[in-house]
Amino acid sequence: MHLIIDGYGANRKMLESEDMIYDLLDRYPSQIGMTKVAPPQVFKYVGSKPEDWGISGFVLIAESHISIHTFPDRCYVNIDIFSCKDFDSEYAIQELKAIFEFDEIQKYLLNRGLEYSNVEVADLKAT
Amino acid sequence: MHLIIDGYGANRKMLESEDMIYDLLDRYPSQIGMTKVAPPQVFKYVGSKPEDWGISGFVLIAESHISIHTFPDRCYVNIDIFSCKDFDSEYAIQELKAIFEFDEIQKYLLNRGLEYSNVEVADLKAT
Repeated sequence: MHLIIDGYGANRKMLESEDMIYDLLDRYPSQIGMTKVAPPQVFKYVGSKPEDWGISGFVLIAESHISIHTFPDRCYVNIDIFSCKDFDSEYAIQELKAIFEFDEIQKYLLNRGLEYSNVEVADLKAT
Repeated sequence: MHLIIDGYGANRKMLESEDMIYDLLDRYPSQIGMTKVAPPQVFKYVGSKPEDWGISGFVLIAESHISIHTFPDRCYVNIDIFSCKDFDSEYAIQELKAIFEFDEIQKYLLNRGLEYSNVEVADLKAT
């Protein structure tokens, strides 16, 4: 299962903190029943457009990963949770909403696996 | 843009080699016009089901990433190329086909970005 979230109107303090993104990637796998195979990698990025700076972070879990890319000046964040085993995507979304305080998200849920799979797309207003 | 590939019938030698997955993640970003922000991380994984062992690898590129999870006993591989800037997805697919020798792929192409986006799904027979 691969849960993809693009979050809008997120809390800028969270998006601009390397430490908070690291802490999230460090503790979140066990919260949703996954096992890290290495410590997270987190970097600050400053590109050619100054407003597109942000934090990129990643943690490898067993045959799976979680990644986060933030754009603090745009209050925007991309999050991927990809696991070869099922997890509770609604719980994951609610947890991430509480952490990032999105106003709105675009969500994709892909049932990637050993058999052919399908895709479900939804716009969700944060509640 | 986020290109997601699930490849079936791939070359087992490629899927089971930590070195070859590392080399691919090390050189592939520049091949498709991206810049690494850290060296790749690559690990061998052996889970509770012996046939589900494989190699997981990841490289962070500017506000983006490439990840690979292989299942050699199933000749199966999951590949994600996520970039905040556009890239030639057809070129990327052709390159990956040549490297992994898939018989067949399931492809998802998500136009994730700063505006709302859409999703395109396709089954492709390898040619």
